[in-house]
Amino acid sequence: EELASFLRIPSVSALPAHAEDVRRAAEWVAAALREAGLERVAVLPTAGHPVVCGEWMHAEGAPTALVYGHYDVQPVDPLDEWETPPFEPSFRGGRVYARGASDDKGQVFAHIKAVQGLLALQGRLPVNLRFVIEGEEEIGSPNLADFLRTHPDRARADVAVISDSTMLAPGVPTLCYGLRGLAACQVDVSGPRSDLHSGLYGGVAPNPLHALAELIASLHDDDGRVAVPGFYDDVRPLSQEEREAFAALPFDEAELRATVGAPDLVGEAGYTPLERLWARPTLEVNGAWGGFQGDGTKTVIPARAHAKITCRLVPDQDPGRVLDALEAHLHRRCPRGVVVSVRRFAGSARACLTPVDHPAVQAAARALRRAFGAEPRFVRMGGSIPIVETLHHELGLPVVLMGFALSTENFHAPNEHFHLENFDRALLSLAAFWQELASWRP
Amino acid sequence: EELASFLRIPSVSALPAHAEDVRRAAEWVAAALREAGLERVAVLPTAGHPVVCGEWMHAEGAPTALVYGHYDVQPVDPLDEWETPPFEPSFRGGRVYARGASDDKGQVFAHIKAVQGLLALQGRLPVNLRFVIEGEEEIGSPNLADFLRTHPDRARADVAVISDSTMLAPGVPTLCYGLRGLAACQVDVSGPRSDLHSGLYGGVAPNPLHALAELIASLHDDDGRVAVPGFYDDVRPLSQEEREAFAALPFDEAELRATVGAPDLVGEAGYTPLERLWARPTLEVNGAWGGFQGDGTKTVIPARAHAKITCRLVPDQDPGRVLDALEAHLHRRCPRGVVVSVRRFAGSARACLTPVDHPAVQAAARALRRAFGAEPRFVRMGGSIPIVETLHHELGLPVVLMGFALSTENFHAPNEHFHLENFDRALLSLAAFWQELASWRP
Repeated sequence: EELASFLRIPSVSALPAHAEDVRRAAEWVAAALREAGLERVAVLPTAGHPVVCGEWMHAEGAPTALVYGHYDVQPVDPLDEWETPPFEPSFRGGRVYARGASDDKGQVFAHIKAVQGLLALQGRLPVNLRFVIEGEEEIGSPNLADFLRTHPDRARADVAVISDSTMLAPGVPTLCYGLRGLAACQVDVSGPRSDLHSGLYGGVAPNPLHALAELIASLHDDDGRVAVPGFYDDVRPLSQEEREAFAALPFDEAELRATVGAPDLVGEAGYTPLERLWARPTLEVNGAWGGFQGDGTKTVIPARAHAKITCRLVPDQDPGRVLDALEAHLHRRCPRGVVVSVRRFAGSARACLTPVDHPAVQAAARALRRAFGAEPRFVRMGGSIPIVETLHHELGLPVVLMGFALSTENFHAPNEHFHLENFDRALLSLAAFWQELASWRP
Repeated sequence: EELASFLRIPSVSALPAHAEDVRRAAEWVAAALREAGLERVAVLPTAGHPVVCGEWMHAEGAPTALVYGHYDVQPVDPLDEWETPPFEPSFRGGRVYARGASDDKGQVFAHIKAVQGLLALQGRLPVNLRFVIEGEEEIGSPNLADFLRTHPDRARADVAVISDSTMLAPGVPTLCYGLRGLAACQVDVSGPRSDLHSGLYGGVAPNPLHALAELIASLHDDDGRVAVPGFYDDVRPLSQEEREAFAALPFDEAELRATVGAPDLVGEAGYTPLERLWARPTLEVNGAWGGFQGDGTKTVIPARAHAKITCRLVPDQDPGRVLDALEAHLHRRCPRGVVVSVRRFAGSARACLTPVDHPAVQAAARALRRAFGAEPRFVRMGGSIPIVETLHHELGLPVVLMGFALSTENFHAPNEHFHLENFDRALLSLAAFWQELASWRP
């Protein structure tokens, strides 16, 4: 019922109409933190939705962990596809159905309850803890990096712990130790002063769509490698150990093929799918457009053409240097008759990697082994979480991504749910983790 | 005042609100044809706006010319850029300002008045004439080809004459003897079953935008030639005489550069700009799109990408064969992981060419020389006029494009006008043309 009261608050951060609900969810978290026994609990303002903080700092000599989570949730549409209303939690089949059940209220609740349990049973925690629970994760955490910079006393720690990711499979405890980074830009190609009639000017006027196609085609070679000189300069090679560890993971290529649903998988020659997804950089055109897009035919030579490009980065690539290389390549390869320009977007992130043999990761592994009675798996992720980059690179923290959700639990979709069995495992895992971490001397 | 009453009718064929005005303009033309002395004058229905026909068929043994023109006009917006209202004809500076003044009411009026003058002065015409004046040219003549097929008695002739084109320069009589043709299609590339997250799938999922770019880039070589095998198979080479004639025309490349307004002109190596514009085929991507087009970044691998392509054709290319070659090339070059499909659009047209030494063209040249006291210029055009293809290829008529407008007269734009001096030249030219044509025995 306590979790249900949290899940009942429709704290949809993307929708201004729910601003008051988001606020109520923050107050709910603050009350729960206080009740758990945390101190200096506060709902702290940002330019957007508030951040909830609290701490317990009495484990002298022991390390300090920063627990990050979020109390906001995704929108719920399409509402008619929900079997039970998204904000009326329904417990059935060993699961709780509600928006936020797995992403991330259920996991935040597990963190709070683990602390509450330890304090109730033992009167103390084995480590020092700081909670930073934000309300804007689902809209890209626009204010959190600033918050951490301006509240160093809330963020000072030796390790960051995040439970907002998935396990490889039911019963398979999973630690994510690496994320890819991101670099983004827009490419604009301009040619004629205005759109021209292809009958009257076809044969003399440069066509920006042809030029853009040439430029995009020049970005990869026939082996699926990125053909931008310098792109791979700072890429840390995969170690033989890591390649073997990837190869030993339970991974179903047929399932990946089915999910992608294309005639074939592609990618950089010489690497397995998991290596390409987790540990090799990529360059993707996310969108491109120019000229006529309506029905039928319009005989126009367009004045301009555009493309959006993002690169997924791996250690030790720097987003700025990668975009420098890309921009130089585009200018070098720009066809005659057009001008190319590149605009960079905010939101760049370096890749994050906490070595598997890091004491905090090993402590987490021991804890998961105890709680699940199964060998934990070490994975990386192809995506990027900007806030992890802030924690990792700006605050210099190793980051332990210890998630208890399953990829089948419909986060961001109708009928989101969370397996209650994994809630229990999470409580055990976290309690064990704080114990295992206590002996670390950073 | 007679021309003014024609120009006052707002016969905008594109706007349903003006349907009654279009009808009035048709009646106006019919009345003018009757008054000129033409016979069998009728306003004949089509699925859209009517066609006005009339004839004078008493020149036994002499050839029959089909005079094509149109009484409909373009819309007038932006209205506030007109110095005088578009449907209140204003005579100033030796010009008449009104929508339709040059395109094409002024020139249709010249044709009618030339006939009226000859019949009034001589009681007969030197040749047989059939008038076909339509009301849907500005919306692409959707019903005219059908009309001509179902009214063979209105279209039977030895030559078609159209006055709806421009002169090279003031005082330079101009005959257009060739138009390019057109072939059009859409290319659709599909990859993943749905849009995918570029973090979670980047490195294994095929990207249709990359594939489309490769395909588009494969369509031209570094010399600006179309690189589709078979594309040039049926292209009739330019004769040395025609190249010399093009080279002798007054043509200002600097002016073309300024109009295009791009950093450079491009096109097929080995040909001059006029040769590339008038007598060489081209392939243009008129539009392309896929994935995210909004502000900022969206890290998506799109499921699909699309391009619109048109080819401008020259004698003796066949649109179907050209699209066959293009489609085969696209399938052959389709990258791994995606599927390409090609949809063809209606509106294909073969190129039209009436040899300069054709007796009807030579008769027109002699007439223009007499009327203007200047040597006529022979030009081709890069554009396509579907109805000319119908006249040329379906009815088998040589087509004489004898226009009296100037490219500076703002057709399709505010402040359209017509030089009254060229109206007088047109009357003289047409009267002389019918005389010169009389001796031809097709």
